[in-house]
Amino acid sequence: MSRFSIPVRVYWEDTDAQGVVYYANYFRFMERARSEWLRARGVEQATLAAEQGLVFSVVDTGLRFHRPARHDDLLDVSAVLADARGARFRFVQDIRRGGPEGELLCTGHCDAACIDATTFKPRRLPRGLFGEPE
Amino acid sequence: MSRFSIPVRVYWEDTDAQGVVYYANYFRFMERARSEWLRARGVEQATLAAEQGLVFSVVDTGLRFHRPARHDDLLDVSAVLADARGARFRFVQDIRRGGPEGELLCTGHCDAACIDATTFKPRRLPRGLFGEPE
Amino acid sequence: MSRFSIPVRVYWEDTDAQGVVYYANYFRFMERARSEWLRARGVEQATLAAEQGLVFSVVDTGLRFHRPARHDDLLDVSAVLADARGARFRFVQDIRRGGPEGELLCTGHCDAACIDATTFKPRRLPRGLFGEPE
Amino acid sequence: MSRFSIPVRVYWEDTDAQGVVYYANYFRFMERARSEWLRARGVEQATLAAEQGLVFSVVDTGLRFHRPARHDDLLDVSAVLADARGARFRFVQDIRRGGPEGELLCTGHCDAACIDATTFKPRRLPRGLFGEPE
Repeated sequence: MSRFSIPVRVYWEDTDAQGVVYYANYFRFMERARSEWLRARGVEQATLAAEQGLVFSVVDTGLRFHRPARHDDLLDVSAVLADARGARFRFVQDIRRGGPEGELLCTGHCDAACIDATTFKPRRLPRGLFGEPE
Repeated sequence: MSRFSIPVRVYWEDTDAQGVVYYANYFRFMERARSEWLRARGVEQATLAAEQGLVFSVVDTGLRFHRPARHDDLLDVSAVLADARGARFRFVQDIRRGGPEGELLCTGHCDAACIDATTFKPRRLPRGLFGEPE
Repeated sequence: MSRFSIPVRVYWEDTDAQGVVYYANYFRFMERARSEWLRARGVEQATLAAEQGLVFSVVDTGLRFHRPARHDDLLDVSAVLADARGARFRFVQDIRRGGPEGELLCTGHCDAACIDATTFKPRRLPRGLFGEPE
Repeated sequence: MSRFSIPVRVYWEDTDAQGVVYYANYFRFMERARSEWLRARGVEQATLAAEQGLVFSVVDTGLRFHRPARHDDLLDVSAVLADARGARFRFVQDIRRGGPEGELLCTGHCDAACIDATTFKPRRLPRGLFGEPE
């Protein structure tokens, strides 16, 4: 299970008056990494919504904070698919400073579901969507 | 033209590492005031979208910053309709600290248009929508 | 343990193109409730920082999503202190639609620590800060 | 005056329930472009703050919206220094879809001032800071 990750630069918008990144904003970084993971696998969220009426929705998420990130830091945000079955899938994610081998700042997870864009009911993940063996 | 305004508390999410409110977030506060102005006039944006396919879209906006707001400040954010004709309307807005007579922090404007929710084309404001004389 | 809560209106800024509140923004709502809980106990975060050099920092947080909130919804966001010892404390929180007895949308927790504003090292919570018996 | 610009991907966090980018978030994109413009000129905001006690603060900003950006769009956000004298400087900026020659979505400006990080009083821009001829 290789570690997929993206670089994320910290801008003023991400920080708060304590001088560090505001805690909720790490969840925004995590979502960017998941979106790029999907793109890297050729999954176009817009196409999936338009052609199959499917969207992804977060069911449960959490983060543990080890060290704060600061303005201008260059972060490395990972997204690793840990499980996928039925309508559900799980990402484990971490955030590091200065690259994939950098100092660990946060670790977390995101459980999501594939749902119908209109009814919001769970829908089985399309076969092979995430490139897993069939 | 009386000054409609709402109280807005500044939370950590609104500030940045300079210790003050991040400049783009004042535009969020201004939109809250405009939404409450609409609600006070009985304009339900959801109903307008569902029944008439109309939404409001910002065309031009600007802000001049006089003094910074800080964490925990209680702001007063105004929305005053300055003009409305055809599909267009203009709000003039200001942000004060400590109430409607408080210290002036920012002054700005927001020009918006009534548009079709699907085609995004301009649509004449429904007659009497903003409570103006017919 | 009574349920402390605050009303939170959902504005456009809180939603995303799926038509619901963006998942990370619920964490902003939770922080507002915690800040108001502190204010209700007479804890001034600015004073605590200025006079004692203490700030609060999130150590671990999580949310489970049951139903989505939408634009214009009036939410009720709770903050209940579940534990406090040494430098650490835990809030359990939920988000409901339409008031304290309303439909349950999310449930979560926030573990935080009292830390030194400069060194970011843990510091024991000042005695009686949260109104607990001494 | 060459056009400096950066690519910005639109994520869910940037959009709202109208299906387009929320208007205040374009100001976040503009600030990212200005920060990268500074970095490209070798101006480290952290160093400037730590060593000279100088920060930049927005004085006046505005945006005109021509066409909306959508989820997953790849934007090109420019920052061009149009003027700099005394403590003040002006950027003119635009946002395009699909690259520097792409469809024009917004045009705007940002007037900023160099200020003392503590007193917030204007301070003359350090000589040659922006690479202009002396």
